[in-house]
Amino acid sequence: MNASTEPRRTRAEWRDYLHRIIFEADTPAGKTFDVVLIWAIVLSVVVVSLDTVESYHDRFGDLFYALEWFFTALFTVEYVLRLLTAPHAGRYARSFFGIVDLLAVLPSYVGLLVPGSQYLMVVRGLRVIRVFRVLKLMEYVGEANVLRRALRASRYKITVFILTVLVIVLFVGALMYLIEGPEHGFTSIPRAAYWGIVTLTTVGYGDIAPETPLGQALAAMVMIMGYGIIAVPTGIVTVELNRAATALANQLRCPGCGSGDHPMDASYCRLCGEALKQT
Amino acid sequence: MNASTEPRRTRAEWRDYLHRIIFEADTPAGKTFDVVLIWAIVLSVVVVSLDTVESYHDRFGDLFYALEWFFTALFTVEYVLRLLTAPHAGRYARSFFGIVDLLAVLPSYVGLLVPGSQYLMVVRGLRVIRVFRVLKLMEYVGEANVLRRALRASRYKITVFILTVLVIVLFVGALMYLIEGPEHGFTSIPRAAYWGIVTLTTVGYGDIAPETPLGQALAAMVMIMGYGIIAVPTGIVTVELNRAATALANQLRCPGCGSGDHPMDASYCRLCGEALKQT
Amino acid sequence: MNASTEPRRTRAEWRDYLHRIIFEADTPAGKTFDVVLIWAIVLSVVVVSLDTVESYHDRFGDLFYALEWFFTALFTVEYVLRLLTAPHAGRYARSFFGIVDLLAVLPSYVGLLVPGSQYLMVVRGLRVIRVFRVLKLMEYVGEANVLRRALRASRYKITVFILTVLVIVLFVGALMYLIEGPEHGFTSIPRAAYWGIVTLTTVGYGDIAPETPLGQALAAMVMIMGYGIIAVPTGIVTVELNRAATALANQLRCPGCGSGDHPMDASYCRLCGEALKQT
Amino acid sequence: MNASTEPRRTRAEWRDYLHRIIFEADTPAGKTFDVVLIWAIVLSVVVVSLDTVESYHDRFGDLFYALEWFFTALFTVEYVLRLLTAPHAGRYARSFFGIVDLLAVLPSYVGLLVPGSQYLMVVRGLRVIRVFRVLKLMEYVGEANVLRRALRASRYKITVFILTVLVIVLFVGALMYLIEGPEHGFTSIPRAAYWGIVTLTTVGYGDIAPETPLGQALAAMVMIMGYGIIAVPTGIVTVELNRAATALANQLRCPGCGSGDHPMDASYCRLCGEALKQT
Repeated sequence: MNASTEPRRTRAEWRDYLHRIIFEADTPAGKTFDVVLIWAIVLSVVVVSLDTVESYHDRFGDLFYALEWFFTALFTVEYVLRLLTAPHAGRYARSFFGIVDLLAVLPSYVGLLVPGSQYLMVVRGLRVIRVFRVLKLMEYVGEANVLRRALRASRYKITVFILTVLVIVLFVGALMYLIEGPEHGFTSIPRAAYWGIVTLTTVGYGDIAPETPLGQALAAMVMIMGYGIIAVPTGIVTVELNRAATALANQLRCPGCGSGDHPMDASYCRLCGEALKQT
Repeated sequence: MNASTEPRRTRAEWRDYLHRIIFEADTPAGKTFDVVLIWAIVLSVVVVSLDTVESYHDRFGDLFYALEWFFTALFTVEYVLRLLTAPHAGRYARSFFGIVDLLAVLPSYVGLLVPGSQYLMVVRGLRVIRVFRVLKLMEYVGEANVLRRALRASRYKITVFILTVLVIVLFVGALMYLIEGPEHGFTSIPRAAYWGIVTLTTVGYGDIAPETPLGQALAAMVMIMGYGIIAVPTGIVTVELNRAATALANQLRCPGCGSGDHPMDASYCRLCGEALKQT
Repeated sequence: MNASTEPRRTRAEWRDYLHRIIFEADTPAGKTFDVVLIWAIVLSVVVVSLDTVESYHDRFGDLFYALEWFFTALFTVEYVLRLLTAPHAGRYARSFFGIVDLLAVLPSYVGLLVPGSQYLMVVRGLRVIRVFRVLKLMEYVGEANVLRRALRASRYKITVFILTVLVIVLFVGALMYLIEGPEHGFTSIPRAAYWGIVTLTTVGYGDIAPETPLGQALAAMVMIMGYGIIAVPTGIVTVELNRAATALANQLRCPGCGSGDHPMDASYCRLCGEALKQT
Repeated sequence: MNASTEPRRTRAEWRDYLHRIIFEADTPAGKTFDVVLIWAIVLSVVVVSLDTVESYHDRFGDLFYALEWFFTALFTVEYVLRLLTAPHAGRYARSFFGIVDLLAVLPSYVGLLVPGSQYLMVVRGLRVIRVFRVLKLMEYVGEANVLRRALRASRYKITVFILTVLVIVLFVGALMYLIEGPEHGFTSIPRAAYWGIVTLTTVGYGDIAPETPLGQALAAMVMIMGYGIIAVPTGIVTVELNRAATALANQLRCPGCGSGDHPMDASYCRLCGEALKQT
């Protein structure tokens, strides 16, 4: 409040102050911190990625190396600050974001010992998920909630579905291995099952393709089947999305007549005209 | 009940006891049996698959051979026990699971006589369907029911759809055979129809691709068509899934005739006119 | 009625009798005629297709040639009978099925003059559509109606959609032609637009693929776009299918309370218990 | 009305008259102008495209050159007329259509200075969007509105979705770069991420494909994931299309505040509480 009359904050106050900036995004300073952080994350991922392009590495290798350690230092300081200002340092360190934050700095240090592992720094990309916190006050969160809720509700059906697909793929793979054989690229059942997945998901690289008429007939049947099968997860997610969207709208219940299913921006019940309050 | 006073079970009791373990999953022993069985099935399929990879075959061939016969022996014993403890051995042997169980052991023995046929042992993968029995008490079954019901309700529409696709593919194949000809890989109408299926399902291997401008124009039209066509099974399955999910969520049973599958807002049974009460 | 007392039918009676067999499928004779016809159609298409496979042509060429003319004679006789027994020969000849029936026999005769055109006989495949008449009394027709109604209702939206896709494809094609150039397979704008369609529809042959980093970045954007775009026709068809299915169910209206949306097998209104009659 | 008694129009009248022809499509002259314009646009795009095909360029190069300048002159005159007859010339010049109209003529002139840039004339294709104005009185506009409204309502969910896909693709790309390495085509992380997009969107060119067993296993997982992921935008668009279609079918307008987009069963305005009447 009256910071001018109190030139020095106590240690606990500093901690609270930093905590709000680092962990929350509801103050201007906290929001700025998060926006800067996200740009740093995106830039560091871009640097790691471009460094693997040989022509860029030859020309800008030293710059990339310097930037890499600059970002690593930045994220290390941030991680330490988070540990210091978190109410429960241990709980933060074991949380999802805590582990991701640690993984974002570890590869650089490990890369000093084990060459090659520094490329795992792209794990920093995972930190971009923090972007959703900046958008907390915007419409994105409701939308993300709908998506998350729909995917969670679909998880059993999708598990049943993936198990079925794996059994089909193994069976078809074994048949193709017998029909086409190693001379046409189907060198083993695992490799034939890999072909089965490539075909059933309609990716179709063409690195392995049936060449005998019988193999092509079986492949055609697999494709038609895949055509029907691809409809299943789509149908599942659509139905669940529809439900989740309806459920979200239903959180607005009329105190007068008890009816739900009001749009997000409604102020009055569409059936009895009563004023609505968000629950 | 008082097993301690009766140290020996009669033969019928033994049969009942084994039957519950082998065929049911509602006792701890029965559930353990099923879990062990499923791991044995998965492992045996993995062994058969890996044995076809040349480098693994060279190094672990003897181990794989031993494991293969170990699993075959295990599944043979299991099949005989199922025959002995089933209430109607003949009915079990002719049931879907009975045939799958037999097919799971046959290839090993036939492989002794006809080389190569032992790879059909991956048919054991089909036995993984038993996994769904272990999950009987969990949410999976309801989900699987929704999937099964939706697919069954879609089967006529999907048959009509596949017939239409086959007619289009044959017709387009014949046109491409005339336009592109054998010199660009379209060596016969069946092969051109195979290309048609590869293209219409958006798999697109690229092993056969049109090279003349006219052929590419026709191919482009087929792709745009396939784009619209792929929407049809997806739409069908989505609509049916929506219905099946609604019906399941609302399993109103008629107290008069016992029929289910009533819509959520039904007050009277659609088959006998009896008043319904929500359960 | 009493055919035994009337050993000879008049010419008009014969015509009526044949008309029912050839054009309808509601008598045993008419149904048998249609089933035989459909098998003849399928077999003739199979013969034409297999004749283009060189190894089969060399071995069975004479047999195929004989069968081809046998089916052509059969279909010619059928076409003439249809013309003779149709109530309005001219209207039949100009109808969709009349033209398809003519196109089914023409290629054989034209093939005598213009070599190669006999492969167009696969147009006979189109005649398989007649199969749906045999199924008239079964559930297929209702399902086909739902499909047809949904596709007809979607046609404006799908036209708007395809126009948009074509504009995108031409624009992206021109950009790729400038970026990649002829040395990477993008030899002209039409060919680049063909690549655009192959990519946007997720077919992805790989016969033309971007090789420069800039081209690959643009291609990646096109794919992500195609990912979203493929959702549009699917969404359109799903929504229309849902409506068409609801409309079909609505044809059953309760005479008591006027409510619709009854399942196809309902005998009683689910809301008031009144007996339902199909309208 | 009585044009014969007034042989000469004033300058303002001419401007009004031309404005109605050029900017509107509700008079016969205005509609004819738009239809001619659209054909000119389509033909000019076809000419630019065909000119890039070498064999056509060699034979019709001079004709194409002449046609190109003819269309450029035509569109330049049209652009100047639009500027002159628009109520606010500056506002038109800065509007979407104003910029597209300028871009349609600029490349030809710029092509005189910078060779190659004239191929950007395909930007003229964008002008085909004007076609929708001709169809203003037809059903297309309502349908386009449904599509536009559904896509606008989906934009947040689709942004969240695309961000998630990009993070997955970068992460998978880095892993594949480590597993497969430059010797199998994964020469850098950006290129591996390009492979990730090609695979996840099921395009599957096959220009880069994993060759090690571990890489193929990871690729198989990515494909199965892509299978589920492709369901998400489809589900989003389907749900929004369903809503938009319902809202359009039921354009209830509030007599109190004039707001639309009320659900079909609304009796009161959700924004001001006024009673609604179906129109």
